[in-house]
Amino acid sequence: MLKNFDRFNFYLQKNEIKCSQIDNIVGELLLSSRIGNNFYIRDISSLENLRESSILFIDNIIFENKSKNIHIVTNNEKNFDNIKNENIHYVKDIDRAYRLIINQLLKHEDELSFEDNFINEKNSFISKSAKIGDNTKISNNCTIGRGVKLGSNCIIKNNVVIKNAIIGNNVIIGDNSTIGSSGFGFNLKDMGSINLSPQIGIVYIEDNVRIGSSCTIDRGKIDYTFIGKNTMLDNQIHIAHNVKLGENVCIAAQSGISGSTIIGNRVIIGGQAGISGHIKIGNNVVIAAKSGVTKNINDNSIVAGFPAIDIKEWKKNIIKNRSDRYK
Amino acid sequence: MLKNFDRFNFYLQKNEIKCSQIDNIVGELLLSSRIGNNFYIRDISSLENLRESSILFIDNIIFENKSKNIHIVTNNEKNFDNIKNENIHYVKDIDRAYRLIINQLLKHEDELSFEDNFINEKNSFISKSAKIGDNTKISNNCTIGRGVKLGSNCIIKNNVVIKNAIIGNNVIIGDNSTIGSSGFGFNLKDMGSINLSPQIGIVYIEDNVRIGSSCTIDRGKIDYTFIGKNTMLDNQIHIAHNVKLGENVCIAAQSGISGSTIIGNRVIIGGQAGISGHIKIGNNVVIAAKSGVTKNINDNSIVAGFPAIDIKEWKKNIIKNRSDRYK
Amino acid sequence: MLKNFDRFNFYLQKNEIKCSQIDNIVGELLLSSRIGNNFYIRDISSLENLRESSILFIDNIIFENKSKNIHIVTNNEKNFDNIKNENIHYVKDIDRAYRLIINQLLKHEDELSFEDNFINEKNSFISKSAKIGDNTKISNNCTIGRGVKLGSNCIIKNNVVIKNAIIGNNVIIGDNSTIGSSGFGFNLKDMGSINLSPQIGIVYIEDNVRIGSSCTIDRGKIDYTFIGKNTMLDNQIHIAHNVKLGENVCIAAQSGISGSTIIGNRVIIGGQAGISGHIKIGNNVVIAAKSGVTKNINDNSIVAGFPAIDIKEWKKNIIKNRSDRYK
Repeated sequence: MLKNFDRFNFYLQKNEIKCSQIDNIVGELLLSSRIGNNFYIRDISSLENLRESSILFIDNIIFENKSKNIHIVTNNEKNFDNIKNENIHYVKDIDRAYRLIINQLLKHEDELSFEDNFINEKNSFISKSAKIGDNTKISNNCTIGRGVKLGSNCIIKNNVVIKNAIIGNNVIIGDNSTIGSSGFGFNLKDMGSINLSPQIGIVYIEDNVRIGSSCTIDRGKIDYTFIGKNTMLDNQIHIAHNVKLGENVCIAAQSGISGSTIIGNRVIIGGQAGISGHIKIGNNVVIAAKSGVTKNINDNSIVAGFPAIDIKEWKKNIIKNRSDRYK
Repeated sequence: MLKNFDRFNFYLQKNEIKCSQIDNIVGELLLSSRIGNNFYIRDISSLENLRESSILFIDNIIFENKSKNIHIVTNNEKNFDNIKNENIHYVKDIDRAYRLIINQLLKHEDELSFEDNFINEKNSFISKSAKIGDNTKISNNCTIGRGVKLGSNCIIKNNVVIKNAIIGNNVIIGDNSTIGSSGFGFNLKDMGSINLSPQIGIVYIEDNVRIGSSCTIDRGKIDYTFIGKNTMLDNQIHIAHNVKLGENVCIAAQSGISGSTIIGNRVIIGGQAGISGHIKIGNNVVIAAKSGVTKNINDNSIVAGFPAIDIKEWKKNIIKNRSDRYK
Repeated sequence: MLKNFDRFNFYLQKNEIKCSQIDNIVGELLLSSRIGNNFYIRDISSLENLRESSILFIDNIIFENKSKNIHIVTNNEKNFDNIKNENIHYVKDIDRAYRLIINQLLKHEDELSFEDNFINEKNSFISKSAKIGDNTKISNNCTIGRGVKLGSNCIIKNNVVIKNAIIGNNVIIGDNSTIGSSGFGFNLKDMGSINLSPQIGIVYIEDNVRIGSSCTIDRGKIDYTFIGKNTMLDNQIHIAHNVKLGENVCIAAQSGISGSTIIGNRVIIGGQAGISGHIKIGNNVVIAAKSGVTKNINDNSIVAGFPAIDIKEWKKNIIKNRSDRYK
C-alpha cells in the first residue's frame, strides 16, 4: 500500500531550513549533531516512506541512513553512534524536537486552512487548488480544502469538511462528516493545544468507498490514513490517524479504530466496537458488535467481547459465568 | 403505526416502467416471469404497506397477491410457483434486482438532493417544496430538503440537515444533527458505493420530540423510520433505517439502535447502549447504560450487560465472577 | 473552581418578576408561600453559586437563607418550615415550577438564538455581541452566538457552533463540534420538548484546551460546564451539562461523561469509556478504554471494566472466568 503524495499541494513551506540550522531550532534540547551534507530540508520521512531531501524522526530503532539526503533526528544514542548516520541530530526530547522543527518548516492545517482562496458555491467553500472530478456533486455548506483531489462521480453531502485528502471515484461522504482533520497527536507529558505534534499527512480514500453521516477520519501524522476500495462505513465512525483499512471492509455505526492500526480485506466490524492502536487485524476477520480488540487478530477469525477472544469461547464464558439461577 | 406518504414529494420518478420492461432491466438475473396485468409501476410496496400500482420485493415469505396492481419480484421459487401470484418476476439475486429496478424508477436522494431549488435564508437552504409550519425557526447553515414537512413551533438549530422527513409540532433538533439521510443498506456480498440498495423511505417524527446535537436518524428503506410523541434523544444518538421508537422513550447519549428494531412506549435507555437490529423491545422497559441488547425484551423488564439480561442476574453474575480477593 | 458570569450577556430578561408574582406563575402547583422581602428577581442561584436578587430551587436539602435577596422555591416541607427562610415558595412539583418561572424570566437559547444580529464572514455567523480575541481564526460555516467570549490565538475550524461560552486563549475546536448547546435536562415523569428544564448556564473553557471533531459539550444547567487548562479531547466526545474536567485531562475518542460529574487533574480516559453522572473522579486517575465508571474513584487509581474496578482485579477476573479450554 505504499503511496506517495506531494505534501506541498496541501500546505506551504514556511521557511527554508538547512540541516545546520537545526541546532538553533532545537536549542536546549540539543545533545550532539553531525552534518555530512548540509542540504535544504524539503520534506519529512517516515521509516515506511523515505523521501528525498527530508528529515526523519526516529526513537529506538537503529536506522542505517543509505541516502545522504535524509537528515535524522533521534533521542537514541545508539542511532547517533551508528557511523553510517552521517547526518544526524541527537536530542533530549524527540517529540518537542519534532514540533519545533516541523512548525518552522511548514504552515500546516491548523494555521493555514484559514488563508486559502475559495470558490463559494451553494455556500460550500471549494479551494481554488482543489481538483474536482467530472460529475462529482458537492452539496451545501461544505469546505473542500487546499490541494484536495476528488475523483469523478463522487457525492459529497451537506456540511462535509474535506481537507488534506486524495479521494477516488464514486465515493459517497455523508452529511456532517469530517475527513482529513488533524488527529490526536501529542505526548502525555506535554499536554495542551500549544504542544500538539504537527499532523502533516493526508487521507487516501480509494474508489467506491461509502462513508456515513457524522464520521471523523483523521489524516496521517506524516504519511497517510488509508481506506481501501469498496469499504463501507456506517454513521458516527471514528478512524484515527495512520489507520489503514483494506478493501471491502464493512464497519457498523459508532465503532472506532485507534491510531496506526492496520485492518485487512473483507473484514466485518459490528457496531460500537473499538480497536486498539498499533495492532494488526488479518483478512476475512469478523469482529462482533461492542467488541474491544486489544491484540493482533489472525486471518479468518471471528472474535467478540472485551478483551476480544474467539467468539465460541466468548459464548462458553458467558454460560459458565452465569449465576446459579441460570444453571 | 401504519402511515402512508407520497413518495414523490421527496424525489422524482426517473422513468415510466411497465411490468413487462423488468425482463430487460434485470437482464441476466432473470429466471422466469409471469405478467397477468401489464400496468405502469408507480410506487414500491413492503409487506407492511401494500401500495397501489407498485412493485414488491420479497424473499422467503410466501405472499398471496390479492391485488392485481402489485408486481412481485422474488428469489424464491415457491413464491413464483404460487398460482395466486399472477404478476411476478423470479430472479437470481433479489438485492441486485432491487437496485437495478429502483434506480431506473426513481431519482432518489443520493443523486437528487443536488438538483433542488432552494430559498437561501441565513445560509440555510430551504427547498421551495418544503412546508414550514408557523413559528418554526430554522437557524444558520441548515439544509431542509425537497418535500420535507416541518410542523409549527419547531426549533431547528445550526448546521442541521433534514431530508426525506415529515416532522410534527414543537420538535427540537440539535446542532449538527442529520435527519433522513440514507441508511447503511447493501448486501455484504456486493460491497462498494455503487452497489448500495436504494433507500427511498422517509423519517416520521411526531410532536414534542427532542433530538440533541450530532444525532443521525436514517430514513426508512422503503417505508419509514419512526419517532413517537414526546420522545427524548440526547446527543450523538444513532437511529438506523426502519427503526420505530414509541412514545415517551428516553435515550441517553451515544446510544445506537440498529436497523428495523421496534421499541415500545415509555422505554428508558442509558448512555452508550447498543440494540441489535430486527428485534422488539416491549413497553416500560429500562435498558441500563452500556448494555448490548441482542434479543427481544418483554414489557416491564429491566436489563443490563452484554448480552443484556435481567439486571438482578447481571449484578449477581458480577459478584459471582469476582476474583478471590473480593470474596 | 467557583466562577461567576453575567447571564445577561448570553440571553435577555423576558419579564420583570417580583417574588409576589410567583403565586400566579406556579398556579395550581402552589402549596404555600412567605414573602419577607418582595424584590425583583434578577438571576438564578444554585447552592454552589448564590447570586444577589436571585431565585433558588432546592429539593431535599435544608437551606438557611442568610441573604434576604434569595427567594427559595422548594418542594420540601422542611425547607418551608425553616423559620430562617423568610422568602420562600412551597410547591408540589419543583421541576415544573422551575420551568414555569424561568421561562417567564428569561429568553434563553432555545428561543433566542434566532433573534440575534450577526456579522456574516465566510458564511460564519458571529454575533455582534461576541468578543473575539486577537489572532483568533474562525473558519467557514460556523455560528458564534450571543455573548460568547473567545480568547486570543484560538482556532475554530469549520461548521463549529459555539453558544453560551467563555473560552480562553490558544483553544482549538475541531470541525463539526458543538459547544454550549442545551443539555438533556427534564423530569422523566414529564417527557416531551415542551417540558424541558430550561438550561441557562454556560461553558467555561480554559487556555490551551484542544477539542476534536464532532464533539458535543453541553452548557451548565444554572452555572457552568468546565474544561480546565491544557485538557485534550479527541473526536466524538460527549460532555454533559455541569461536568467539570480538571487540568491536563486527556480523553480518547467516543467517550462520554454524564451530567454533573467532576473529574480531577491529570486524568487519562481511554476511548469509548462512559462515566456516570454525579460522581467524582480524583486526580491522576487512569480509566481504561471501554470502561463504565459508576462510582467515585480515588486519586491515583487505575480502573477498567464495567462496572469499573481496579485494573489488576479486572485482569484477574478475566483469567478466572475463562472457560476450561483456556485453563
